[in-house]
Amino acid sequence: MITDFGEDDHFVASLKGVILKINPSAQIVDITHHVPSFDIMRGGFILFSCYKYFPAKTIFLVIVDPGVGSSRKILLSETKDHFFIAPDNGVLSFVLESEEEKQIREVTNHNFFLKEQSKTFEGRDKMAPVAAWLSKGISPEEFGPEVRDYEKLDINKPLRKEREITGVIVYIDKFGNLMTNIPATMFN
Amino acid sequence: MITDFGEDDHFVASLKGVILKINPSAQIVDITHHVPSFDIMRGGFILFSCYKYFPAKTIFLVIVDPGVGSSRKILLSETKDHFFIAPDNGVLSFVLESEEEKQIREVTNHNFFLKEQSKTFEGRDKMAPVAAWLSKGISPEEFGPEVRDYEKLDINKPLRKEREITGVIVYIDKFGNLMTNIPATMFN
Amino acid sequence: MITDFGEDDHFVASLKGVILKINPSAQIVDITHHVPSFDIMRGGFILFSCYKYFPAKTIFLVIVDPGVGSSRKILLSETKDHFFIAPDNGVLSFVLESEEEKQIREVTNHNFFLKEQSKTFEGRDKMAPVAAWLSKGISPEEFGPEVRDYEKLDINKPLRKEREITGVIVYIDKFGNLMTNIPATMFN
Repeated sequence: MITDFGEDDHFVASLKGVILKINPSAQIVDITHHVPSFDIMRGGFILFSCYKYFPAKTIFLVIVDPGVGSSRKILLSETKDHFFIAPDNGVLSFVLESEEEKQIREVTNHNFFLKEQSKTFEGRDKMAPVAAWLSKGISPEEFGPEVRDYEKLDINKPLRKEREITGVIVYIDKFGNLMTNIPATMFN
Repeated sequence: MITDFGEDDHFVASLKGVILKINPSAQIVDITHHVPSFDIMRGGFILFSCYKYFPAKTIFLVIVDPGVGSSRKILLSETKDHFFIAPDNGVLSFVLESEEEKQIREVTNHNFFLKEQSKTFEGRDKMAPVAAWLSKGISPEEFGPEVRDYEKLDINKPLRKEREITGVIVYIDKFGNLMTNIPATMFN
Repeated sequence: MITDFGEDDHFVASLKGVILKINPSAQIVDITHHVPSFDIMRGGFILFSCYKYFPAKTIFLVIVDPGVGSSRKILLSETKDHFFIAPDNGVLSFVLESEEEKQIREVTNHNFFLKEQSKTFEGRDKMAPVAAWLSKGISPEEFGPEVRDYEKLDINKPLRKEREITGVIVYIDKFGNLMTNIPATMFN
């Protein structure tokens, strides 16, 4: 689970309650809830930095969702080893661009949502229950139809011009390290 | 588990150690540990906002306890679906006032407390072990006698006067949303 | 698990992913990840304050590691009731000085490390997998040879001079309480 909900309110607990009510034996791991509000790039990069270390069949619930309540899609993506549930806003860019095998669905089947729904908390009312039902063994096809495309983050690709490389700083960590999108191979 | 202990010290870990020593298969979920110190109303409202999403028979351990070490009671309450262990200081107000079926006990049975006890950490020495023993299937009656009443928060009820409604802001969330105690029905 | 990684980055999640990939049924408990960066004394004291409350055979993974990437050893220590994995920098001082029975090993067996290794994240690449394999029942001897000594924190022992006692404040908690290394017996 990775969100921008912080840990001061009831939001994260509500997600966990919903999941455990559906699947009491779910093993929930927090990646972080301190993604700055609505910071899709940072959330996506944190996910990208750790997801490969998780066991096969891990379901990643990714809620950084400035468009909550709008018509943006909710995606369920299956890659070679993992599942990802997230709003279709680019937060899965880093992961999906690095994965060769992937199948992406739009989550549309209301049967897997909570019965009562608020207007502003689709994480609790739609995404968490979908993650829980998926963890119970429901097949991805049941949640909705395949889609061809998904939102990508608009990051300039690194450019080489004579003896100069221009890239983007995609992440600054706690210790002040800056990470760019310039691959080591290009630098070499 | 919901507390005002923060996450910088050893407090929360000590509670979890105590619980797992008694019941190694307990599944512990953090609601939040960032209730501002001694803020009973805020702690109570966070609990109220999420408890219904948790599975039946969940035990809520609620430690916002400015009166620790005083003669305030420790309560064990059983509602239709859940259990609550908390100091008797109003932190359970929102929950208990919204539940029709409820039984409330004072926890008095020293057999379920840790043998060694400090003067300032009843969460670890009394409340956590009681939660753990309850999770092992000990019957609520074993922990102490029923009580008739419990502390309630002193919040003015919302008032309507001609074209005006006066209420209280009971919660401000991370995103700056203000929640009042004025029900939508009164507003309509 | 106790670290100085904070909860904003992917660090803690990467540790947990590594552990769960090796031992999917590991039960992971966070002590805190808010030890101030590189604050060995504070990290060691927090650990010391709570470890006795944890069940027998608990494995404590302690990562406050200013010397990461240097030649400092990684220790695996077994005391009467618990295991500790930590860099050899004094972070285990408080615990080990209070335990009579203890066996200390240097972790040297590369077979238990991740295959791919970074230069700056030995917590993920070495210590977490060692903790996970240990939790799977691998015997401590397998990880490396016994060592005689370990780094200790250089804290002045409390001194009594006539009607005066001089000690060191080793910890300040959230509530502003100061803890010294002067034992109550000396004070009496």
